[in-house]
Amino acid sequence: MSSGMDLSAKGIHATNAKGPFEATSFTRHQPGPKDVVLSVKYCGVCHSDVHAAKDDPSPEKFPVMPGHEIAGVVDWVGSEVTKLKPGDHVGVGCMVDSCLDCEFCKLSNEQYCANGCTMTYGGEPKHGRAGSETTRGGYSTKMVVTEHFCVKVPKDLPLEVVGPILCAGVTVFDPLVHWKAGSEHVKHVGIAGGGGLGHMGIKLAKSLGCEVTAITSSPKKVDALRELGASRVIVSSDEGAMKGAAKSLDLIINTISAPHDIMMYHALLRPNGTLVQLGLVGKPHSVCQVPMLMSRAGISGSLIAGMKATQELIEICTRDKIWPSVEVVHCNQIDRIYDELMSKSSMPKRYVLDVANTMDEYCSQKQQ
Amino acid sequence: MSSGMDLSAKGIHATNAKGPFEATSFTRHQPGPKDVVLSVKYCGVCHSDVHAAKDDPSPEKFPVMPGHEIAGVVDWVGSEVTKLKPGDHVGVGCMVDSCLDCEFCKLSNEQYCANGCTMTYGGEPKHGRAGSETTRGGYSTKMVVTEHFCVKVPKDLPLEVVGPILCAGVTVFDPLVHWKAGSEHVKHVGIAGGGGLGHMGIKLAKSLGCEVTAITSSPKKVDALRELGASRVIVSSDEGAMKGAAKSLDLIINTISAPHDIMMYHALLRPNGTLVQLGLVGKPHSVCQVPMLMSRAGISGSLIAGMKATQELIEICTRDKIWPSVEVVHCNQIDRIYDELMSKSSMPKRYVLDVANTMDEYCSQKQQ
Repeated sequence: MSSGMDLSAKGIHATNAKGPFEATSFTRHQPGPKDVVLSVKYCGVCHSDVHAAKDDPSPEKFPVMPGHEIAGVVDWVGSEVTKLKPGDHVGVGCMVDSCLDCEFCKLSNEQYCANGCTMTYGGEPKHGRAGSETTRGGYSTKMVVTEHFCVKVPKDLPLEVVGPILCAGVTVFDPLVHWKAGSEHVKHVGIAGGGGLGHMGIKLAKSLGCEVTAITSSPKKVDALRELGASRVIVSSDEGAMKGAAKSLDLIINTISAPHDIMMYHALLRPNGTLVQLGLVGKPHSVCQVPMLMSRAGISGSLIAGMKATQELIEICTRDKIWPSVEVVHCNQIDRIYDELMSKSSMPKRYVLDVANTMDEYCSQKQQ
Repeated sequence: MSSGMDLSAKGIHATNAKGPFEATSFTRHQPGPKDVVLSVKYCGVCHSDVHAAKDDPSPEKFPVMPGHEIAGVVDWVGSEVTKLKPGDHVGVGCMVDSCLDCEFCKLSNEQYCANGCTMTYGGEPKHGRAGSETTRGGYSTKMVVTEHFCVKVPKDLPLEVVGPILCAGVTVFDPLVHWKAGSEHVKHVGIAGGGGLGHMGIKLAKSLGCEVTAITSSPKKVDALRELGASRVIVSSDEGAMKGAAKSLDLIINTISAPHDIMMYHALLRPNGTLVQLGLVGKPHSVCQVPMLMSRAGISGSLIAGMKATQELIEICTRDKIWPSVEVVHCNQIDRIYDELMSKSSMPKRYVLDVANTMDEYCSQKQQ
């Protein structure tokens, strides 16, 4: 079967860890009967993109075309696609395939697929629904994605805020739900880090009925975090404030992706509490066991969310108007944004590439 | 009020971290209307006793009289005592007081008392129900304990197996129950370490309907652990076996109290699993965050159990005849037993001091 579609795409990729990004052209794989072809309108810039493109200099992983906070419009659907049609708004997050057969996939925990899910970029398409090459992400004008890994986006949710919900949003939403934020014994929730994930964490925890404490290393973010809904903001370098907050939180969602002293956050947990680490921190933590024993307070991690929870969050965000704070930027800002994210001074908002309106210009500028 | 009881006691204490134990005589505090006076019959020797008496050489903590696996017979009860009477069998575990007023005490999680519970030995009696001096444990002939911290022991449970249930038993039982061992998604349970706690963990996990994997560093324990109920025994130094068991367990109760590579055990967890650390390991662990993210599998700790769960376990052990494997020993074996426990070659059983029959002889031998 051939879609008869033009599958040529323009995109932004890194060919090595040091230099600036480059423009490129390529062709997406032929879609099958369960696939969706979409024009990318916006793509958020996630901190994981920075890890993928900048942190690991191994030559075999390049080129990398990041982007897994993708919002677009459906151009074409295969004959077996049921929930989407051309013209629909659509979102694609961090995964584009998984086995769909193991117990975790069957629970819609595709992110923990026993056979390994295929990530939206840099992933190996081993399950047969994501083409035949290493996957390329949403810093590109076109995508071909199997319907299961697309979410339908209501038209009253602005398309430019969709992408960050699909990664930053679900990454904080899934652990809040998993650890029962808002329930009787989980009222006091901490959100550590005030960047792309942290700012969504504050909004979502508040909407779940929690009393939110934001913890930030940056005094200049205090007002912004309070405005987002935190009833208490602690600057982590303020030892007195950290001590004063000891044993006050039932759940902490820790979005910090740089190495940090994990026990400093653990000390804020009440008995039975959980500290959930979300950042891809490579350096091992030094973890003291005795405080864990003394309070039955644990440390865990969490990775994005499955497709069911992702669709659910899109609907919650639409209904309750919980929108990520975004700044839509021209594709030619990509290198500057990466520099800012690497400097750790990122503000509580997400940068979103205006792919539809600025990719062409970026590519022609680059080719001059 | 005076009980009119003879409150003089003989006991075994350590006056420093290096030398052998010594015999001593002292007087227990006057009991009040809610107190119970008991003659100690047996007292288990716990690994925590070794930590308390041998690991920390700070002079201010000595003398230490360990023992928190205490089984005895009630001699006298105060006028407000309701559940016990003279002649009853009684157990005293790791705590002898707590505030009884905070939210954790009200949930019978006295071990996590917001105001700090008073431990059976080496504890500060700040809540008013445990005398006025640093507490002395069960390596002694007599105890005075407030009724709330006594458990009633059915007479068909042999008194010599009661002590290890009150510490080793509850320490593994409480996390098994808290993390829902035996429920639909928690069928595959690992018990790491095959000593006093580990052997009870195997018996209790099996009785809760779990498929039990025992993990031991000692090839010579394999048969004994299988006999206790483990359907699979892995020797932790066998890299192939550890790799083969990767991602196979929903819950691991880790009883190892010496420094160890925690991530080696974490790798055995399935997604959503929990590794529960029970040992008083002082040295921090090196914990990699990324495997936690990739499987939403966490690390926590747990400390003994509250009084309600402790009473419950006594009843379960009586009903189902789940008895700790014990070896009753003469008090004059105390130094040899400590040497064995410190050598890490302890077998899957608990040593229990025969206080009633051998304390007098130990004390007279020591005084010669």
